[in-house]
Parts: sequence; C-alpha cells; structure tokens
Amino acid sequence: MAQRSPLDLPEGDPFGPDNLPYGVFTTSDAPHLRKIGVRYGAHVLDAGAAAAVAASPHAELLGASSLNPLMAAGRPVWQAVRAELRDWLTNPAHRHAIEPLMHPLTTLALHLPIEVADYVDFFASEHHASNAGKIFRPDGDALTPNWKHMPIGYHGRAGTVLVSGSPIVRPHGQQLPSASSAPPRPVFGPSLRLDFEAEVAFVVGAPSPLNTPLPLAGFHDHVFGVCLLNDWSARDIQSWEYRPLGPFLGKSFATSLAAWITPLDALATARTAPPARDVTPLPYLDDSAAEPGGFDLRIEVAVNGHTVSRPPFSAMYWTAAQQLAHLTVNGASLRTGDVFASGTVSGPNPDELGCLLELTWGGRDPLHLPDSTRTFLEDGDEVTLTAWAPGPDGVRIGMGEVTGHVVPAAS
Amino acid sequence: MAQRSPLDLPEGDPFGPDNLPYGVFTTSDAPHLRKIGVRYGAHVLDAGAAAAVAASPHAELLGASSLNPLMAAGRPVWQAVRAELRDWLTNPAHRHAIEPLMHPLTTLALHLPIEVADYVDFFASEHHASNAGKIFRPDGDALTPNWKHMPIGYHGRAGTVLVSGSPIVRPHGQQLPSASSAPPRPVFGPSLRLDFEAEVAFVVGAPSPLNTPLPLAGFHDHVFGVCLLNDWSARDIQSWEYRPLGPFLGKSFATSLAAWITPLDALATARTAPPARDVTPLPYLDDSAAEPGGFDLRIEVAVNGHTVSRPPFSAMYWTAAQQLAHLTVNGASLRTGDVFASGTVSGPNPDELGCLLELTWGGRDPLHLPDSTRTFLEDGDEVTLTAWAPGPDGVRIGMGEVTGHVVPAAS
Repeated sequence: MAQRSPLDLPEGDPFGPDNLPYGVFTTSDAPHLRKIGVRYGAHVLDAGAAAAVAASPHAELLGASSLNPLMAAGRPVWQAVRAELRDWLTNPAHRHAIEPLMHPLTTLALHLPIEVADYVDFFASEHHASNAGKIFRPDGDALTPNWKHMPIGYHGRAGTVLVSGSPIVRPHGQQLPSASSAPPRPVFGPSLRLDFEAEVAFVVGAPSPLNTPLPLAGFHDHVFGVCLLNDWSARDIQSWEYRPLGPFLGKSFATSLAAWITPLDALATARTAPPARDVTPLPYLDDSAAEPGGFDLRIEVAVNGHTVSRPPFSAMYWTAAQQLAHLTVNGASLRTGDVFASGTVSGPNPDELGCLLELTWGGRDPLHLPDSTRTFLEDGDEVTLTAWAPGPDGVRIGMGEVTGHVVPAAS
Repeated sequence: MAQRSPLDLPEGDPFGPDNLPYGVFTTSDAPHLRKIGVRYGAHVLDAGAAAAVAASPHAELLGASSLNPLMAAGRPVWQAVRAELRDWLTNPAHRHAIEPLMHPLTTLALHLPIEVADYVDFFASEHHASNAGKIFRPDGDALTPNWKHMPIGYHGRAGTVLVSGSPIVRPHGQQLPSASSAPPRPVFGPSLRLDFEAEVAFVVGAPSPLNTPLPLAGFHDHVFGVCLLNDWSARDIQSWEYRPLGPFLGKSFATSLAAWITPLDALATARTAPPARDVTPLPYLDDSAAEPGGFDLRIEVAVNGHTVSRPPFSAMYWTAAQQLAHLTVNGASLRTGDVFASGTVSGPNPDELGCLLELTWGGRDPLHLPDSTRTFLEDGDEVTLTAWAPGPDGVRIGMGEVTGHVVPAAS
C-alpha cells in the first residue's frame, strides 16, 4: 500500500487547513538551526524553505529563527502569509514542491516559538478568583472590591517562560509550617504544595508606542496568536510571600508555553459572548457594543494521562481584549513578544477547575486518580493541557498541548 | 589661554579615573549610530573607537550598540576592560590618540544603556515599607509578617524602562474618589497622586542557568553595575488595584533609569555593613559572616531644582546580594540585562524619605518648596535624583543622575 502523503489529512484533523499554527523547530541533523514550522496534521512544514521555493515576498520573515519578525510585521502581513501557507498546503499544483518540506512531527525538537518580551498574568476567571480568595483569605471577602471593575493582573518573569516539554524542577523556598506559631516562623525547603494552573496566553505581534492606550478594537491589530500556558505555582511559597506586592518566587521558577501559536484568525468561529457582567465596567472596558470578546476553547487537564478537569475558557469574566485595553490605558507600550495570560481558567462546576488548589480545596479534599490520590503534585507527575475550539463546518481547531513533568528538587 | 585637555580633570572630579561609568550615546551627525561611551569628567570617551585604535582584544564588545555584550562577558573581562580604560584615559602615552575621541557630554544624546531583560523591584527599606504600610493600611500592622524574613519584591514592566531625561506623561487610570461609597465605585481619569520613588538599581551582567540558586557571594560574579532609578508611581491607581496581586498599572507607565551604569568595582570603597537585623534570616540570606553587603550611596532628590530629601542607601535593611540570592533561590535563572531595584530608599529621618507619599504622609502634610507647596507632583514638575559614594582618597564617586519632568495627561 502506498504511503499516504503528509498533505492528505484524515477527515476532521484538528490541525487542518483552517488551523495552521506556527512553531519553531530543529531537526536532529542540524540541532542549532532553528526554523519556523507550520503544523499540518502530524507533520510540520518547513515554512522558510517553502517560502524560498515559492519566491514569497515573506521569505525573510518565514526564514527567521523565531516568530518575532513575522509577529512584528502586523495584521495585513499575517493575513497574506496565512493565505500563502494555505495555498502551499492545499493547492495540488504545489504538492511536489511542498511534500519534501514536510517533517514528521515526532522527528523534530520544538523550541520556544517566540522571544518573550514582557509577561503579564491576569486573574480573569470569577470562579477561580473567588475560590482562591476563599482558600487564601477564609476570613475575608472572596473577591477584592476592585475585581469586578478591572482585570486584575501582575507582571511575571519573562526569562523563565519555557517551551512545553521542559522538565519542571520542584522549587525551594520559604514556607510556613502547618503548625503555626506567633509570630510566624518560616522554614526553608522544597515546595510541598506544587500546583499547575491551566491558562490561555495571548501573544502580542504588532507593538504600540508609549502613551497611546489601545481601544478594545485594537485587539485584532496587535494580537498575533493564542496558545495554552501552564503557570506552575508553589502555593506554600506564594501564600507566605504575596502580601503586599503579589506573587513572586511562588511563580517565577517556571511557566510553560505551548510550542504552537494558533493564529487569531484560526479562532474566528470560536468567538463567543462573555458571561453577563453584574457591574457595568468603565467605558474603556465596556464591551457591551463590541464584537463577542470571549473564545470558546475547551480545555482538558490530564495528570499522568488521567483527565482531572475540563475548564471552559468561554466562562472567563474578563476578555483578552479588555485585558489589552487595561494593560495600555495608563500609557504603557507594547512590544513584539509581549505575552499576557488569562490566569487560571475555572468554570462553575467541580470538574471544571483549572488548578489543584481549587480541585482539592487547598489540599483538604484529595483528588482521586486511578491508582492513587493527589493533594498537590508529586515528583514524577506529568501535567498536560490540551484544548480545541469549534472551527468552520464542525471541524475542531486543535491547540498545541502544554506538558511538563515534575523533577525532584535539586539537592 | 590654552584650552584644558578633556583628559585633565579638576581635582576631586566625581567622574574621575576611579569611576568610569558606562553609557550609550549618539552624536548629532549620526543620530542612529549608538556607541558605548565612558564618562570622564565633563566628557565622554568613544570607547569603541578607543578600543579599535588600541587594537584591544575587547574592541568588539566596546564597539557594540548596547552594553549587553560586555555585560554578558563576565567579571574577568569587566576587570580587564576597566584596566584598559583607565590606562587609555590616564597614561600620557595615549593622550594624543585618546584626546580626539573625547566628546563634550553636553553635545551628546544619551540612550538607555542596556537592553532590559526582566525588571524586578524590591521593597528593601524598613523605613519605607513601614511608612507605606501605615499610610496604605492604617488599621493593619505597618510591616507584613513576612517582611523581616525575606526581601519582598515583584516583577515590573521591562518594556517601559526609559532613559533619564525622558518625559513622563501623567497616566490615566482607575481611582477611588475621595468621598468613598459602599461598595466602592471607581472613577477614571488622570492620576491625581503622581509620585516619584528614589531607588538604586543593580544590573545583571553574567547570566545564570535555571535551577542553580546563587549564594550571597555570587553577587560579584553576576552584577555588572549600579545606577539610580526613579520608579514613578501613581498612588491613586496603585492603592485601588494592588490587592491581591500587587502593583501593576500604578507603576508600569514609566520607570526612569540613569544613562550611566557605575561598575561595581568603582564602589569597592563604598561597601558598608547593613543595619543590624532584629530577626535572623534563613541561612541562604544570612550575611552575618559575609563581606559588608550595603553601599554607602548618598542620594539627593530635587524637585524643580530644590532639594527635598537626602535618602541614605546605607540604611537599607536588605542588601542587593540578599536580593539576588532570594531571586534565584527557587531556581529562577538570570539573563544579561536583568535589572533589580532596591525599592524606595528612605532613611529614619523626615528629610531622608524617598517619595512624596512619605514626605507628605499620603498628601496630608504638604511639602514646602521655595514658592509653592506640593502634595503630589504637578504638571511641569521636574524630579532629579543624584548620588555620590565615598571613593579612594576622599574623592567622591558620582552616580549618573536620573531626571524626568511631568507632562500633562494625554487628552
């Protein structure tokens, strides 16, 4: 039987011609030569080589070693390149030229697809924010008074954003012993409450200058794409350190980003209205007359291959467009490679919570896996986030997975 | 009378041969050609040109358009380059070659001398932290329970770190009206409580890998230099947004960095013991047996040319070496260009406070300038930070100033 061409996809493949996510790969024979790839089914197109063969006007952008030059080029170029890629991959006239440029995904090493500029993490799920509030501050209000008025966020560490698959070494840090003393006396050691956070990240392509706030409609011109993100969190370190300046070492040891960036245009059919807001936001955040700001991404979280949660991204209270408007309303500029993430995606139901903190209610109610239970992550555990979105004609748009396994703390 | 050579400095010049700070400049005839300069008195040596003339092994590093390649090269190279620079500037044998490479400082445009990777801001002055605690949380403890156990810090926005002299546009943002309602109802507009924060920043040169915490002694191998920093702060935006994830838009609109980075070796004579700690830190932060971790930098803050404060950097509770050890203790890596700042430098006395929040006690006690008063900054105000440190033989080591003036909010 003749081998099927990598250009002939099984029907309904979630990485078909309406998806076309971008990544950066190396092959085993040239492990230092990073190239831009486009995932198509179970293969990856060498996009730079294809652009050279096709004498594309975008050959230089696609021949780069990261996505940043393409991302900086702006929306008209993104659309033109996407049309070219679709033509190369689906037009039979190009088949003989393109087929040799397709690499089986399993033969490649995947790298961080972008050079991260600033990394911001929001806190945009009402379910997550109120659950976390109840767990961290049992005697206070679940939501702080500002929460319904603005997308709360903070800057994270850009230098420790890692590509999916990178091992996650259990961090050391200060933590309070469970038997509390007065005044509190921290101990030092490996985190005992290591957690994941299932999130969705938005990647800024076109920069914006200082002192020019972006309206909600600026989202399309500046955001290049979307991907999954795991904001690994050491809850014991975080809960001791976070007052009054927010999370720091409890988060900064590692953040895992998918190897594939889904272009915003691939999610056009996944746009959905956000939940009703019970507080009318200030005008710069008021999206009641704007296009639907939500994305219907169906996330699945697996621990050691066992699905533990299905967080619905459509349930997020604050949208990415609102986050971008908020981020720039004080005059802050955007750079190509800025990443802003949603914060933990949690839905209203117990099987829709995006982190162990919530799934086990701060460790009180262990989570049952087939052969064991978990309160927080154990050494050797592997956490994998996957997601899909509704595409045209009932076909799913697959998002690149984010996976990572926990390695014992350094001695 | 013959003009004095730029190589002949007045006695006691604070930018003499024991200082030699690095910056990046352009000249008016080549405004896009960034060059590394070394300040010497009132002149700047074109360091790349000097290295080329001298056939220095470091000509490529000094011929770069930012300090990052030199910073990445590590301490032995920093020391070798410093010795070369000192020789070029002080050895009469080189006078004829070097003199033509000296530009009057006033003729140059100065640029951000480094490419900032991650920017972290600490909160290391006990006086500032307890004053801010009293003002922001009048009903709570002045210091949070963690404060004496770790240098509290957070990540700021690297993309809006600006060079000294950049105008500071008053930011818009959400703020609570002074007549409070229940529940609180924010309004939107230009910040009415714009402030400065006098800080000292440390610039990371040599990177460090993931999962390799640095001991206190790692400070010398990784920190390239020191400079002044103004962490502009919109107090009304900050106080409404900062719970529970810390400062965000109240800080991210602008942070001003000096144009000159003082090499760590220029401050060898300024090392001083930090204040006595009343809580013994955990071993990774315990510097009781280490070399003195403080720096005796005498800072002066001027508003519109009038000195309003003289914050003593020697009063900081947590040292930069402790901050670096803390920053990496969870396994976080360092990149060349990482900047970590001290947080507001405030001393124990009323004329040693490093921000208007403290100087006016949250706006309650206006500050008197010669012809006017201030609670917070007004449009047109200019804030200038200067500093010096004790050098060898009683000569002062000058730090590059940080200045900025407030421009009205965009309409």
